[in-house]
Amino acid sequence: MVKKSLLALGALMVLFPTMAFAEDPSAATLNSGLSALWILVAGILVLLMQGGFILLETGSTRMKNAGHVAGKTIFTVGLASLVYWAVGYGFAFGGDAGESLNKFIGLGNFLYEPSFLAVDGENYPSSVFFVFQLAFVAVSLSIAWGGFAERAKLSVYLIFTLFFAGVIYPIVAHWIWGGGWLAADGSQDFAGSTVVHLTGAMAALAGTILLKPRIGRFNKDGSANEILGHNQVYTALSVLLLWVGWFGFNAGSWLAVSDGFFGFVAFNTQLGAAGGAVAALLISWLVLGKADITTTLNGALAGLVAITASCAYVEPWAAVVIGLVAGVLVFFSAKFFEAIRVDDPIYALSVHGAAGVWGTLSNGLFATKDLVTITNVGKSGLFYGGGWEQLWVQFESVVVCGAFAFVASFVVLWVMKQVVGLRVTEEQEIIGLDLSEHGTYGYPEQMKKAGTSV
Amino acid sequence: MVKKSLLALGALMVLFPTMAFAEDPSAATLNSGLSALWILVAGILVLLMQGGFILLETGSTRMKNAGHVAGKTIFTVGLASLVYWAVGYGFAFGGDAGESLNKFIGLGNFLYEPSFLAVDGENYPSSVFFVFQLAFVAVSLSIAWGGFAERAKLSVYLIFTLFFAGVIYPIVAHWIWGGGWLAADGSQDFAGSTVVHLTGAMAALAGTILLKPRIGRFNKDGSANEILGHNQVYTALSVLLLWVGWFGFNAGSWLAVSDGFFGFVAFNTQLGAAGGAVAALLISWLVLGKADITTTLNGALAGLVAITASCAYVEPWAAVVIGLVAGVLVFFSAKFFEAIRVDDPIYALSVHGAAGVWGTLSNGLFATKDLVTITNVGKSGLFYGGGWEQLWVQFESVVVCGAFAFVASFVVLWVMKQVVGLRVTEEQEIIGLDLSEHGTYGYPEQMKKAGTSV
Amino acid sequence: MVKKSLLALGALMVLFPTMAFAEDPSAATLNSGLSALWILVAGILVLLMQGGFILLETGSTRMKNAGHVAGKTIFTVGLASLVYWAVGYGFAFGGDAGESLNKFIGLGNFLYEPSFLAVDGENYPSSVFFVFQLAFVAVSLSIAWGGFAERAKLSVYLIFTLFFAGVIYPIVAHWIWGGGWLAADGSQDFAGSTVVHLTGAMAALAGTILLKPRIGRFNKDGSANEILGHNQVYTALSVLLLWVGWFGFNAGSWLAVSDGFFGFVAFNTQLGAAGGAVAALLISWLVLGKADITTTLNGALAGLVAITASCAYVEPWAAVVIGLVAGVLVFFSAKFFEAIRVDDPIYALSVHGAAGVWGTLSNGLFATKDLVTITNVGKSGLFYGGGWEQLWVQFESVVVCGAFAFVASFVVLWVMKQVVGLRVTEEQEIIGLDLSEHGTYGYPEQMKKAGTSV
Repeated sequence: MVKKSLLALGALMVLFPTMAFAEDPSAATLNSGLSALWILVAGILVLLMQGGFILLETGSTRMKNAGHVAGKTIFTVGLASLVYWAVGYGFAFGGDAGESLNKFIGLGNFLYEPSFLAVDGENYPSSVFFVFQLAFVAVSLSIAWGGFAERAKLSVYLIFTLFFAGVIYPIVAHWIWGGGWLAADGSQDFAGSTVVHLTGAMAALAGTILLKPRIGRFNKDGSANEILGHNQVYTALSVLLLWVGWFGFNAGSWLAVSDGFFGFVAFNTQLGAAGGAVAALLISWLVLGKADITTTLNGALAGLVAITASCAYVEPWAAVVIGLVAGVLVFFSAKFFEAIRVDDPIYALSVHGAAGVWGTLSNGLFATKDLVTITNVGKSGLFYGGGWEQLWVQFESVVVCGAFAFVASFVVLWVMKQVVGLRVTEEQEIIGLDLSEHGTYGYPEQMKKAGTSV
Repeated sequence: MVKKSLLALGALMVLFPTMAFAEDPSAATLNSGLSALWILVAGILVLLMQGGFILLETGSTRMKNAGHVAGKTIFTVGLASLVYWAVGYGFAFGGDAGESLNKFIGLGNFLYEPSFLAVDGENYPSSVFFVFQLAFVAVSLSIAWGGFAERAKLSVYLIFTLFFAGVIYPIVAHWIWGGGWLAADGSQDFAGSTVVHLTGAMAALAGTILLKPRIGRFNKDGSANEILGHNQVYTALSVLLLWVGWFGFNAGSWLAVSDGFFGFVAFNTQLGAAGGAVAALLISWLVLGKADITTTLNGALAGLVAITASCAYVEPWAAVVIGLVAGVLVFFSAKFFEAIRVDDPIYALSVHGAAGVWGTLSNGLFATKDLVTITNVGKSGLFYGGGWEQLWVQFESVVVCGAFAFVASFVVLWVMKQVVGLRVTEEQEIIGLDLSEHGTYGYPEQMKKAGTSV
Repeated sequence: MVKKSLLALGALMVLFPTMAFAEDPSAATLNSGLSALWILVAGILVLLMQGGFILLETGSTRMKNAGHVAGKTIFTVGLASLVYWAVGYGFAFGGDAGESLNKFIGLGNFLYEPSFLAVDGENYPSSVFFVFQLAFVAVSLSIAWGGFAERAKLSVYLIFTLFFAGVIYPIVAHWIWGGGWLAADGSQDFAGSTVVHLTGAMAALAGTILLKPRIGRFNKDGSANEILGHNQVYTALSVLLLWVGWFGFNAGSWLAVSDGFFGFVAFNTQLGAAGGAVAALLISWLVLGKADITTTLNGALAGLVAITASCAYVEPWAAVVIGLVAGVLVFFSAKFFEAIRVDDPIYALSVHGAAGVWGTLSNGLFATKDLVTITNVGKSGLFYGGGWEQLWVQFESVVVCGAFAFVASFVVLWVMKQVVGLRVTEEQEIIGLDLSEHGTYGYPEQMKKAGTSV
C-alpha cells in the first residue's frame, strides 16, 4: 500500500501544478526560502492581529455600534492595502540603490510590482517583505481608530485611511526603517514601538481631540463617567489574538531564521507581555481594591508594545522589567488621560502611546553591547556602558516621530473637519452608528428584544 | 549561565524524543523539508478557515439556531475527514503512476497510508499533502452548508457529507488537479475558484432549491423580507479569519517555497481581497445610499474567491481589477438571487458561486505569458496575446464542473428527500434547531431572558 | 519597473536591520533553522489554544462570570510565563549534561537565559524550545482551571499558578520528557496526553473536590441539575481553535522537519480528532435520542487528547480507532462524574483526564515496531508483538503521574483553603464573579437589560 501510494504521488507531482526542481537548490537559495517562509508566516500572524482589533474595539464599545466598528476594520484594511500598494510602500521603502537615498521620504516602487521568483543574491523575495510591511500599516491604522470610536462618520474612516496609509505612516517608517535620517542616527526601534504604535496613537490623539469626547463621557463639572465596553470575552480574546500575532510582529522583524536570533526575539517578547499583564493586575488591585480586568488586558498589551522596540536589544531580565514597568505605566496613563478629559475609548493613547514611548526609550537604558553588535544598529544603553548617547537618540526618535505623526494627522483631520465634518449628529450618536450609518443593527435580535429604539 | 544552559540542552536533545542527525541532510532533503513545512502550515491555515465559517454562518443566521449551526461544523469536518481518508482522497488523487490515469476518477490510496518519513526524490512528504487537500474539502463542504442553513435536518448534514466529501468534490478535484481531463486541457484554477468554491456553491444551490426558502423569507406576492443575521461582530471576524486562512489556501497551493513564487501568490491574494472589499463598500453606498456592512464583508470574500483561481497567473494590477469586479459582482448577484426567490442565507451562491466563476474566467483574460511559463499550466489570456483559447478552456471548466457539482448534489439530495426528508417541520423551524434538534438553546440565558418560546 | 525595484530592495536590505550573510550557511545550520522555524510556529499555535480555552470556559459557564473567566486566562498565562522562566523550566529541563541527571527533578537554568544565536551542533536554538515548552505549561494550567470555574476566588488563581507552573507540572514533564525515571523506562507520551492533559485534569479534580460543587448543581437528594453554558458559538469556535492549535502541539513535538515525520504526526492527529467528534455525536444520539452539541464538541477534543500520546507511535487505522473510543469514552465519563456528584463545569476530567489516560494506554496496544524504531522510545504494543511490557510502562506512567499531580495539587490547595480560603461567599457566587471580584459585568449592557441584580 505504502509503496503504491508513493508511485501515485510521483505521478501526482507531475500533474499537480508545481514546479519540477531541475537541480538541487543552493544553500543561499534555501536560506532565502527559509527567511521567505518565516516572513510570510509572520505577515499572516500580523494580519491576524486585525481579528484582535475587531474584538478589542467592539468589546470596548457599545452594542449599538458593534457592526459599524467591526465592519469598518475590514474595509479600512482593504483600502489601506490598495493605497499602500499604490504609493505608501514607495514612500517608505522606494529609492534607487545607486544614489544616496532621500533622508526624508522614499520615491519609487509605486504601484509596486515584486519579482515573480526569488532573485539570486536577495536575502528574501520582495513580495513577502511587502506583505509583511503592509500588515504593519494596518496595525498602526487600527490603533489610530481607537480615537475615532463611536462618533466619527464613516466617510472619515475612508478619507483618513488614504492619508495615513498612503503618506503619514510611510514617512515615519522611512525615517527609521527605510534608510531615513533616524536610521542614520542609529535609532533602535526593532519592530515598531515608535513606527507602528506611537504613530497610530498620535493619530488617535489628533482624532479624539478634534472629535471631542463621546456624549456622556464627561460631566459639565469635569468629572468622568465610565462608558463600559459591552463584551469582555471579546476583549480578552482580542488580547490573546494580538499576543499570538505579536510573535510575527517582533520575531518576524528579524527577517531571517537560520542564525536563530528570531527565537531570542520571540523569547523576550513573551517575557515582556507576561510582565505587563502581571504588573497591571497587581497595580489595579493595589490601587482600586479590585483587580480590574480591563487594566490587566491593557497591561498585557502595554508589555507587548514596550518590548516591541527592545526585544532584540535587551537581556531577558530587562525584558521582564520593561514589561512590568509598562503594566504599571498603562494604568496611570489611563487615569491621566481621563483626568485631562481626553476620551480614549480603547485606551490607544496609554497602551500604544505611553507604552510605545517607554519601550523605545528603554533601549537607551538596557541595550547591551553584544546585542547591538548582532543587530548592528546604534549603541548600547546607559546601564551597559553606553552613556547617554543612545538614550538621546531614542528620545529624539520618540519626539520627532510623535510630533510629526500628531501634527500631520491633526492637519489632515482639521481640514476634513472644515470640509466634510468629522462627527455624526447627536441624534445619530445616540441611536448608534449601526443604524445611522448602515441601516441595520449589528445585533438586530438583541437590540430589538431589549426594547431599544427603532 | 549561557554556557551551562547549552550543555544542558545538549543532554536534553538526547533525552527528548527527537531524532539524532546522523549526517547532514542533502539540499534536496532540506528543500523538501521547506516545502513540507509550508504545506503543513498552509493546511493549518485552511483548517482555521473553519473558524471563519462557524462565525460567518452563525453570525448570518438567528440566535435560535446558533448552537446547531456552530456545532454541526465540528462534526461535519470530523466526518468529512474520515470519509476523505477512506475514499475521497483515492478518487481525487489515487492511481498508479505507470499507467495512463483515468481521466474521470482516480482509483487507489483508499484508507490512505502515507509513508512515515520523507522519501528521496519526493518534493514533499505525502502526509502533508493529504492534510492540505483535506482542509480544502472541508472548505468546500462548509460553503455548501450555506444553502442548508436554518431548516435542514441534522441527519441531512451527516448523509450529504458522505457523498460530497467522499465522491462529488473528489471527482471535480480529480478533473482539474488530479490529472483528469480538464488538467489535460490546461485548465487554470490555481487554488480552486472552481474546484472548491464553485463546487461548494453548486451544492448549496441544489440544497436551497430542494429545501425551499425559510419560513418568512418571501411573501406570497413574491416580495422578499430580509432575515437579518444576529451578530455582525461574528461575521466581520469571520471574514478576517477567512482572509488570514486564504494565504494558506492560495500561497500554499504552490506546494513549494524555495523559488519564492509563493510570495508573489500571497501578494496578489492581498490585492484581490482589498479590491473586493473596497468595491463592494462603494457600490452599496452608491446604490443604497448607505454603506452596507454585509455587502462589504461579502466583497472582501468575493475578492478572495475570485483571485483564488488567478493569483498565480496575473499581474498585480490585474489582481486589483479582478478583486474590484468581484466586489461589484457580489452585490448585484445577491440582488439577483433574491429577485428570483432563491434563499441564500450566507450568500454562498454570490460569494463563492458568482465570484468563483468570474475568478476562473478571469484567467482567460489576464493570464500572462511569463506566469503561464512559471506555472506550466495552460496558455496566456485574451489581453496578453493568447487569443480566445484559454478563455474557452476556462469557460468549459466552469460549465462542466458547475453542472456536474449541481446535478450530482441535486440527485443525492433529491433521493434523500424522498427517503428520509430534508427539512424539519414548520414547528421545529419556528422554535429553532437548537431546541428541536439538540434539546437546548445555544444561548440559553439570552433566549430565556428575552421571553422566547419554550 | 521590476528591475528598479530589485535595486531598491538591495539597498533596503542593507538599511533594514537584518544580518548580512557573510557566507552561505551549512546544511546543518539550515536544518537547525528549519527545525527552529517549525518549533516557534508550533509554539505560537499552542499559545493560540489559549484563545480556545477562553472561549471554551466562558461559553461553558454563565454570563455573570464571563469577564472574570476570560480575563483570568490572560493574567495566569502571564504569571505562568514568569514563573516557568524563573524556576519551572529549570525543574523540568535543567541539569548538567556531564553528570547523571537527577531522576526526579531537574536543577539549573533558573531565570533562563538562552543563547542569542544558534550554536553549532544544536538541533535547534534553545530559545524556541523554551517558548514551545512554555506554551505547554499554559495549556495544562488552563485545563486545571476547569475545576475551579465559577466559584474560586481570584487570589486562588494567582497562588496556584505559582505552584502548578513553577513546580508540579515541571516535575511531571521532567519524569517523561526531561530525562527522568519514566523516560528511562521508555514511557511513550509523545506530546503529552499524560504530561499535559492528565496533569491538568488531576489539578482540576483536586480543585473541584476541595471547592465543592457550584450552588444549584446538585440537589439534596443527589440528583443533578444541568448548569448550561451561555454560548455554544464560543464553545464550537473554541474547539476549532484548539483543533488548529493541536497541530502545533503534536506535530511540533517532533522538533524537526527535514525527515518529514512531523507530517505523519499531523496526519494521525487529524484522524484522531475526526474519530472523536463522529463517535461522540453518534453515541449521544443513540443514547439520548438527540445529538448533543456539547458531547460532540467534547468528543473532538477527547479524540485530540487521546491521539496526543500516540500520534507518533500508531498506524492511521489505529489513530481512527483511538479517536472513536475517546469519543465514546468522554460521553460515559461525563455521565460518571455527574453520577458521583463531582462538578466539572467544562468537562476537564472527562476530556483531558479520561481521554488522556486512554490515549497514553493506547500506545501499549497499538505502538508499531517501525514507529518505535523511528521515535526511539519504548517498545511496540500488545497488538504488534510487543507483549504486555509497554502496556505496563504506560499504565505505570498514568498512575504515578496522575497520582503525583493529584496529591501535589490537593496538598497545595488544601493548605490554601486553610490559610486564605478557596471559595467566594455564597452571595458573591450568586451575584457572579464579574461584579464581586472585579466590580463590573463582563457584559454590562446585556446583564442590565435582562434586569439582573445590581
